[in-house]
Amino acid sequence: MKRSAVRELLKLTAQPGMISFAGGLPAPELFPVEAVRRAADAALALRGGSALQYGETEGLAELRDWIAARFSRTDAPLDRSRVAIVSGAQQGLDLLGRVLLDPGDAVVVENPTYLALLSAWRPLGARFLPVPSDARGMRVDELESLLRQRPKLIYVTPTFQNPQGTTLTLERRVRLVELAHRYDVALIEDDPYGELRYEGESLPSLFDLAGRARGHDGSVIHVGTFSKTLAPGLRVGWALAAPEVIDQLTLAKQAADLHTSTLNQGMVLELLREGALAGHLPRLRDAYRQRRDAMLAALEAHLPPSVRWTRPEGGMFLLVTLPLGWSGAELLKQALARNVAFVPGEDFHLDGAGRNTFRLNFSNATPERIEEGVKRLGEALRAWAPERSGQLAVSPG
Amino acid sequence: MKRSAVRELLKLTAQPGMISFAGGLPAPELFPVEAVRRAADAALALRGGSALQYGETEGLAELRDWIAARFSRTDAPLDRSRVAIVSGAQQGLDLLGRVLLDPGDAVVVENPTYLALLSAWRPLGARFLPVPSDARGMRVDELESLLRQRPKLIYVTPTFQNPQGTTLTLERRVRLVELAHRYDVALIEDDPYGELRYEGESLPSLFDLAGRARGHDGSVIHVGTFSKTLAPGLRVGWALAAPEVIDQLTLAKQAADLHTSTLNQGMVLELLREGALAGHLPRLRDAYRQRRDAMLAALEAHLPPSVRWTRPEGGMFLLVTLPLGWSGAELLKQALARNVAFVPGEDFHLDGAGRNTFRLNFSNATPERIEEGVKRLGEALRAWAPERSGQLAVSPG
Repeated sequence: MKRSAVRELLKLTAQPGMISFAGGLPAPELFPVEAVRRAADAALALRGGSALQYGETEGLAELRDWIAARFSRTDAPLDRSRVAIVSGAQQGLDLLGRVLLDPGDAVVVENPTYLALLSAWRPLGARFLPVPSDARGMRVDELESLLRQRPKLIYVTPTFQNPQGTTLTLERRVRLVELAHRYDVALIEDDPYGELRYEGESLPSLFDLAGRARGHDGSVIHVGTFSKTLAPGLRVGWALAAPEVIDQLTLAKQAADLHTSTLNQGMVLELLREGALAGHLPRLRDAYRQRRDAMLAALEAHLPPSVRWTRPEGGMFLLVTLPLGWSGAELLKQALARNVAFVPGEDFHLDGAGRNTFRLNFSNATPERIEEGVKRLGEALRAWAPERSGQLAVSPG
Repeated sequence: MKRSAVRELLKLTAQPGMISFAGGLPAPELFPVEAVRRAADAALALRGGSALQYGETEGLAELRDWIAARFSRTDAPLDRSRVAIVSGAQQGLDLLGRVLLDPGDAVVVENPTYLALLSAWRPLGARFLPVPSDARGMRVDELESLLRQRPKLIYVTPTFQNPQGTTLTLERRVRLVELAHRYDVALIEDDPYGELRYEGESLPSLFDLAGRARGHDGSVIHVGTFSKTLAPGLRVGWALAAPEVIDQLTLAKQAADLHTSTLNQGMVLELLREGALAGHLPRLRDAYRQRRDAMLAALEAHLPPSVRWTRPEGGMFLLVTLPLGWSGAELLKQALARNVAFVPGEDFHLDGAGRNTFRLNFSNATPERIEEGVKRLGEALRAWAPERSGQLAVSPG
């Protein structure tokens, strides 16, 4: 294993004065700290010692029930046999890989895709088959030729994707679910950001579409988390899958860490019961919408017209594309010298693509800091441009 | 993967009226619930949103420092570069296996050994080389011939072993550390129970012995947990190893679950700072000592003299041995019919040994329930004996 470049970068960005668009961090000042404190009190008062005891590997029954109810529809009901509680979505993805993949198995992923998915599944011997994506998400029209190579899994983040911030259209969702079914390939839908929509209408999840079309036959596995809506420090997420897959995942989880913190599961349950999540989400969406808007406005103001970026309707990220031949990693050096950080896009890409891209996070800085950081980024870009080929049409900024 | 028999058994033992000696559960009525509640308040008040934010994969720096200080000696100092925080000792073992083992690698283990270690490392392709053990722990005199087979690791629980409750003598500890060094085999010391000593003098850990002999050269890896001393529901443990191994473990953990709950780490740190652990341990030891004593007295009173058992100086378990040819799994059926449960010993053993053994846990029932449960066990044994060969010399009980 090689040391993660992103991880090293994130340590660097902890330096004072740095404006970081690098991490995937929610805004800590928006965490419902007081509600969490009350939830800890309530879980301990209600459950006493059992709130601190070993628990079932599958997770707290009441929390599994809540999640089953949340994703149930009249025409496609769910029960807890299809729900496992995991220590954040990352663990769900890691365990699913361990359970479903054999060395050499092919996995279809968007290009670019979630970096830590690649880190988790590469050691399992997965071969990644990248599908290109555009402003409307995965190019589903390019999927079919890859499915003929008989991949074991399709991994996709259809809503506010990391790193692009793009959302798969309804038409493509329907087609994707249909293709996965026809070629009998399990589809893993990673959905950490779905609740963070700042404009436009919600689209049905792949899990929901498949459930409505054919009942929950297990062809779509859904992974979710409370990390982006409540707080990541609790490490509580879930996986929805066929009961047989939940059973296998549970055995793998038992060997991995026995179970997710009983106390934290009890606290999340209290937060859900007292309506803290429902009450918190509108405030969170408002704040993040302002940050996204601030970033889009600042990019417009400070970056030259030859630079392009995605316009996410939700989530925490957007992807910037420099002119071809330019390097996000090289620009990062200039940016760090001006105390502003981002993640170069290359690591999110397969097949050596994306050298001229970089990812910006907009959830972890105030609108004022975002404006200042993007301004510095524009300065870095302009200062760097003369050293380059002159292909950059410099705008007044 | 096959379904874990023990896990199924544990679900059965949740039935009302059942006296269970089956699980490895601490006593929930002894958990420091009020101190944990105060620690949650303090961690949230002190750290605010950062108590709920993503954290470094290696763990909270102050908690790593505390653990480094706890295991430091003047002649063998430690710093946080040798400490990783993990989600319970089980995760430490799982990640160490993933980092250190290649398929087909041989691993020396005690026979019997910790069941969940086998479950975690079997899927990695480990080959287990069992060393017999007796009342004084691993038969280190039988180790050398196995070391000539060039195993990658030695895994041992030297103190109050699970399932036997036995403790490796000082002489054997010294010899074990010396042999591992001479044959250049890494030694993993699993020490979840070391703080739970009810009689006799504490022995130095293998980690400490190696550190004193040669400084911390990384030849001994130590895995520990707050699960048995504070509460397992927090899922906070640690691994001590050479910085290079900690780095590799950290990369594996990042892919596995990003990091251990930030809040729970902060809470454990508050519990340590306010002295809650130090204040709690004497009470815990007193209560568990009474339970161990009650179980030893009840076994003496109710089991026939042809049945033997270990006499642990600490921990949570003892191992019962029936006459040769008898089956712990068969006895379990009789016992369950009388609402008493235990874990048959076969699964803890390698090479098909241990069919005539079973494990009893004494930490999770009051002395009164222990007396009643062992009495029922004696009845089950006597009722079952006539169906057998008559080799059991029935005592009046």
